[in-house]
Amino acid sequence: MTSEFKMTRRVEFCETDMAGIMHFANFFRFMESTEHAFYRSLGFSVTLAKEGGFKGLPRVHASCDFRAPLRCEDEVEVHLLVREKKSKALTYDFIFRKAGAEVARGALTVVCVEFDPATRSMKAVPLPAALAEKIEVAPSALFPEKK
Amino acid sequence: MTSEFKMTRRVEFCETDMAGIMHFANFFRFMESTEHAFYRSLGFSVTLAKEGGFKGLPRVHASCDFRAPLRCEDEVEVHLLVREKKSKALTYDFIFRKAGAEVARGALTVVCVEFDPATRSMKAVPLPAALAEKIEVAPSALFPEKK
Amino acid sequence: MTSEFKMTRRVEFCETDMAGIMHFANFFRFMESTEHAFYRSLGFSVTLAKEGGFKGLPRVHASCDFRAPLRCEDEVEVHLLVREKKSKALTYDFIFRKAGAEVARGALTVVCVEFDPATRSMKAVPLPAALAEKIEVAPSALFPEKK
Amino acid sequence: MTSEFKMTRRVEFCETDMAGIMHFANFFRFMESTEHAFYRSLGFSVTLAKEGGFKGLPRVHASCDFRAPLRCEDEVEVHLLVREKKSKALTYDFIFRKAGAEVARGALTVVCVEFDPATRSMKAVPLPAALAEKIEVAPSALFPEKK
Repeated sequence: MTSEFKMTRRVEFCETDMAGIMHFANFFRFMESTEHAFYRSLGFSVTLAKEGGFKGLPRVHASCDFRAPLRCEDEVEVHLLVREKKSKALTYDFIFRKAGAEVARGALTVVCVEFDPATRSMKAVPLPAALAEKIEVAPSALFPEKK
Repeated sequence: MTSEFKMTRRVEFCETDMAGIMHFANFFRFMESTEHAFYRSLGFSVTLAKEGGFKGLPRVHASCDFRAPLRCEDEVEVHLLVREKKSKALTYDFIFRKAGAEVARGALTVVCVEFDPATRSMKAVPLPAALAEKIEVAPSALFPEKK
Repeated sequence: MTSEFKMTRRVEFCETDMAGIMHFANFFRFMESTEHAFYRSLGFSVTLAKEGGFKGLPRVHASCDFRAPLRCEDEVEVHLLVREKKSKALTYDFIFRKAGAEVARGALTVVCVEFDPATRSMKAVPLPAALAEKIEVAPSALFPEKK
Repeated sequence: MTSEFKMTRRVEFCETDMAGIMHFANFFRFMESTEHAFYRSLGFSVTLAKEGGFKGLPRVHASCDFRAPLRCEDEVEVHLLVREKKSKALTYDFIFRKAGAEVARGALTVVCVEFDPATRSMKAVPLPAALAEKIEVAPSALFPEKK
């Protein structure tokens, strides 16, 4: 059972904007990339589900609070914590740290869905058991206090 | 005094992902683009501030709830509503509608800052008066009920 | 029979980088967006092909020469010219102009393919006749001289 | 004196498009990221130049030929080779390989410029000597034959 995951990533030139800092939308890409690396660390691939053409994990909520900017070539640690686990949904918190200091804190809620190619509709379904049984909610002590 | 703004935009192929829908991070780009078009509609340019090298409007909060997917070439209306106005900050709500139906609802809080090139630091400062005096909080009746 | 198409687009904040100009990779997104708008102008949708799950127009070549930068909120005209038409492929030239002056010139070659979902492979196939019969190579007089 | 550099990178979900493959514009981002990692490997940072506000390396040419698609979570090796070195410009070739097989080949030409903040203009200037003296053209034997 796993409840957290960390990944380090370097901010790239193309991720900055004319204000000289990482564009805020990229924080959401970093969160998702960390989430997907978390699945890989558990032996799952976000693409395997897609290959079958049936299941996916679309986001139903995303948020982020920004405290300090990230600049080009900064190394940022993205720390994923499992906040909530439901039969069909997972909520993650993400803490971004640069040289140990928190620069941003975000959250994603993802829902497991089946795609019906005929109607192009999505229907919420239970998380695959093999994935769900490896994930547990992080103990509250792991969540740093909001500053 | 203005408290809302609407923009219509078409989802592009490069904004989709392998799930066949617009990647969620692009909703945040659409919000910012609408915010900037709002400033232009008031006679201001987000780049004029930058040219002086002193002022900017970095985001301190961004969030979005996703109800239905957007697909390639969908036309989406992004409706900006001024939720809150402070001396140094503005909070906007955004409602995304496709063919009249709400597909997502988001929010951005931006803070006016001065950049100090010497120290590369930012300091919160009051919004330019000429901009602030044109913006007012939208009456609560304008905000659609959360569904 | 159509051999050219023009679209105007405004550079957005999120398309700039820390050098204060539009990031060069976005010129390629602008070219593709113009190409897709060209198909729409002919009554075709790049997504209709996708819906069937069988046909697509992946790029086999892309290039661009950059003469002058584009900045945030610049309005740029993207001028598509049909350079070459083969049974299974199309080559387009693109001229980017800002206030009438050329800022960049690019090219895309796209090949019509059928996707085989079983093997996940692509095979080149003839362009749909209904599309091909509406497109013709632009007369050489239309191509501005290289500067 | 260095004339080549290799970097491996995993394709992310947000880099794919609705065709289920990496969007072609991202190949250009991968090239630039590899170029910047190359500079870091030589002890230089693309941001140091920017900090001074005077020098940069804008692209004047970019091109890519695509032979096979990249999919989500594919690991791709990007191999940079110095094709040409002039006093004010560098041209790089890039070979993309997946599991040893070439999937794409690209090129970038970058020019060293000084920005004049007053006029917002750029002027080509010689490459910094400390950087130029560490870079040499790759021997022709290193360039794989075009397939």
